[in-house]
Amino acid sequence: MAVWRGVLEILTVDLGERSYPIYIGTQLLTQAELLTPHIRGQQVAIVTNETIAPLYLPTLRATLSGYTITEIILPDGEAFKDLPTLNKIFDQLLADRFDRTCTLIALGGGVVGDTTGFAAACYLRGVDFIQVPTTLLSQVDSSVGGKTGVNHALGKNMIGAFWQPRCVVADVSTLATLSDREFASGLAEVIKYGLIADEAFFLWLEQNSEQLLKRNEALLIEAVLRSCQNKADVVAEDEHEAGKRAILNFGHTFGHAIESHLGYGHWLHGEAVAAGMTMATDLSVRAGWIDASVHCRVKRLLKACSLPTKPPKGITPAQFMTLMSVDKKCIGGRLRLVLLKALGEAVVTANYPESHLAQLLQELCH
Amino acid sequence: MAVWRGVLEILTVDLGERSYPIYIGTQLLTQAELLTPHIRGQQVAIVTNETIAPLYLPTLRATLSGYTITEIILPDGEAFKDLPTLNKIFDQLLADRFDRTCTLIALGGGVVGDTTGFAAACYLRGVDFIQVPTTLLSQVDSSVGGKTGVNHALGKNMIGAFWQPRCVVADVSTLATLSDREFASGLAEVIKYGLIADEAFFLWLEQNSEQLLKRNEALLIEAVLRSCQNKADVVAEDEHEAGKRAILNFGHTFGHAIESHLGYGHWLHGEAVAAGMTMATDLSVRAGWIDASVHCRVKRLLKACSLPTKPPKGITPAQFMTLMSVDKKCIGGRLRLVLLKALGEAVVTANYPESHLAQLLQELCH
Repeated sequence: MAVWRGVLEILTVDLGERSYPIYIGTQLLTQAELLTPHIRGQQVAIVTNETIAPLYLPTLRATLSGYTITEIILPDGEAFKDLPTLNKIFDQLLADRFDRTCTLIALGGGVVGDTTGFAAACYLRGVDFIQVPTTLLSQVDSSVGGKTGVNHALGKNMIGAFWQPRCVVADVSTLATLSDREFASGLAEVIKYGLIADEAFFLWLEQNSEQLLKRNEALLIEAVLRSCQNKADVVAEDEHEAGKRAILNFGHTFGHAIESHLGYGHWLHGEAVAAGMTMATDLSVRAGWIDASVHCRVKRLLKACSLPTKPPKGITPAQFMTLMSVDKKCIGGRLRLVLLKALGEAVVTANYPESHLAQLLQELCH
Repeated sequence: MAVWRGVLEILTVDLGERSYPIYIGTQLLTQAELLTPHIRGQQVAIVTNETIAPLYLPTLRATLSGYTITEIILPDGEAFKDLPTLNKIFDQLLADRFDRTCTLIALGGGVVGDTTGFAAACYLRGVDFIQVPTTLLSQVDSSVGGKTGVNHALGKNMIGAFWQPRCVVADVSTLATLSDREFASGLAEVIKYGLIADEAFFLWLEQNSEQLLKRNEALLIEAVLRSCQNKADVVAEDEHEAGKRAILNFGHTFGHAIESHLGYGHWLHGEAVAAGMTMATDLSVRAGWIDASVHCRVKRLLKACSLPTKPPKGITPAQFMTLMSVDKKCIGGRLRLVLLKALGEAVVTANYPESHLAQLLQELCH
């Protein structure tokens, strides 16, 4: 008789017939009971990467020992989030004769999750998939919302689909193996939810950042849960990003410009977003929408998490503008940004003084 | 002042908020009024192939002169219905900075339609598309139902999405440029609708096959309309192929086996389906579900259209069985087939005597 001791919180993402649960807790990878109700057939493909496989694949595989398992191990890195890698997943599914009743399980971070989710969306025109995110960033971000996809040589996440998972298993115990930098990068997205939608959560993060950085599991569960709750609320309102969902891109238009300029891989995504959020907050202060003290608090919290609060050196204001306007948030030529109307309340707008943006870039970039 | 003289029938495919009209008539490519209500933004990409482009691209382009048009001309043929070709479409859309408000128009046959539809499903996680099918096969088949996708080295149509067009413009005037063989191949699918769902239509086809083969436009409109109606009825009941929709595959499991055996391109799709329908009808007779006279009528009508009524020489019964079981309609090991319970009524079933299938293959294959 096996005894399991752990903590479990269940959050349901409400999307009508595509609703699904997010399980958040500790030591969840050994819990077959969480997964099996969401697996229709006998065929299961666990898709992961070379870094994650030795850490968690044996555990998950053992948990699912009753199924016919195919392991698909991708190379690690954003560079492999592309159509050729997607096709390798299809190669293996077809070689193993996976049919429409199969389930794909994404075990890993955002790259594995996005690629696997898109493979599930396209294979035989759509099969089931389950997210088992093992990074803080993917637990709070890419595992909620149904965005899947791969990169194209001419832009990130340009090819993809909206495809909801059957369930998400966010085991915070897996965060123990993250590097400090990766962990902090995930915290940037956690902080984002406080800024755009939840002032009380922002306050909680200010008070608990020290223990969070020590990866206290109880606090991690709370941080992941509240992030997912906030994201799920936004997504439930606007599943296909027609409007409000765009506030989730707070800091991202600036951040993507930074990532493009440096070349992907130099700064982690969360690091670029941290600098981007500082800039978006700064612009919101300049527009007169929030008090300068908010900008100070944002910078203080990000610094406490060892995250950057300004863009890297060597990028000119003109380069910044060009890189931002390439972003797909630019519709009809006018650059829309996510700015703060208050701490805990973001809006998508093209109605900000352009001179303020120019001034901001002038001061920060040299 | 321009005067347009033509015939137009409008059929609405009822899929809730994804409902769309199918315009069927003559000289429709010059009618901007049919297209413009379904184009949201300014950016339009017309995707076609090298064979179709000289015939109809200038006309369609002129009709849409008010838009920013990008032409994407693919090589002609099933061999190019693959991920690399898909990526070439993305290359051009991204190079021309197409945003989420863009519309892709598929001008051509099934390959162009399936590939373009799938590109629309994935580009920026989904943009609008319009089907302008220029072959009889695509007018009655691939333009209705929302199935899009590409082939994989290990199987046809293995990668794709369900993605509905904003509208379909089926101009029967474009059928004048089809070869007799291609035209007859399309007729095979037309005849299929009579067999699986519409006895009166089958009778009408028997009575009018001669004039249809002469491409009488009034009869073509009627044939396309009734085929689309029948297909739309089935699809409206079962958009994502959970059940009933599978009857549309009547003759296709046999047909795909023939196509795989010969290598794609030797027999046209409709030719293989014609032989497959004869075999499925034969098996239905053997099972005692329909009278042998139905089998004779099917063969007679197919022959009148110069379509094959038996598999090609050189394929053994064992090869046939293996090829059929690879088909994705095979779930859990047992081969499901679409058979006739009556003329005009098909069912999907695994409950047929396997000995009858073996016998049938034994007699027809040597």
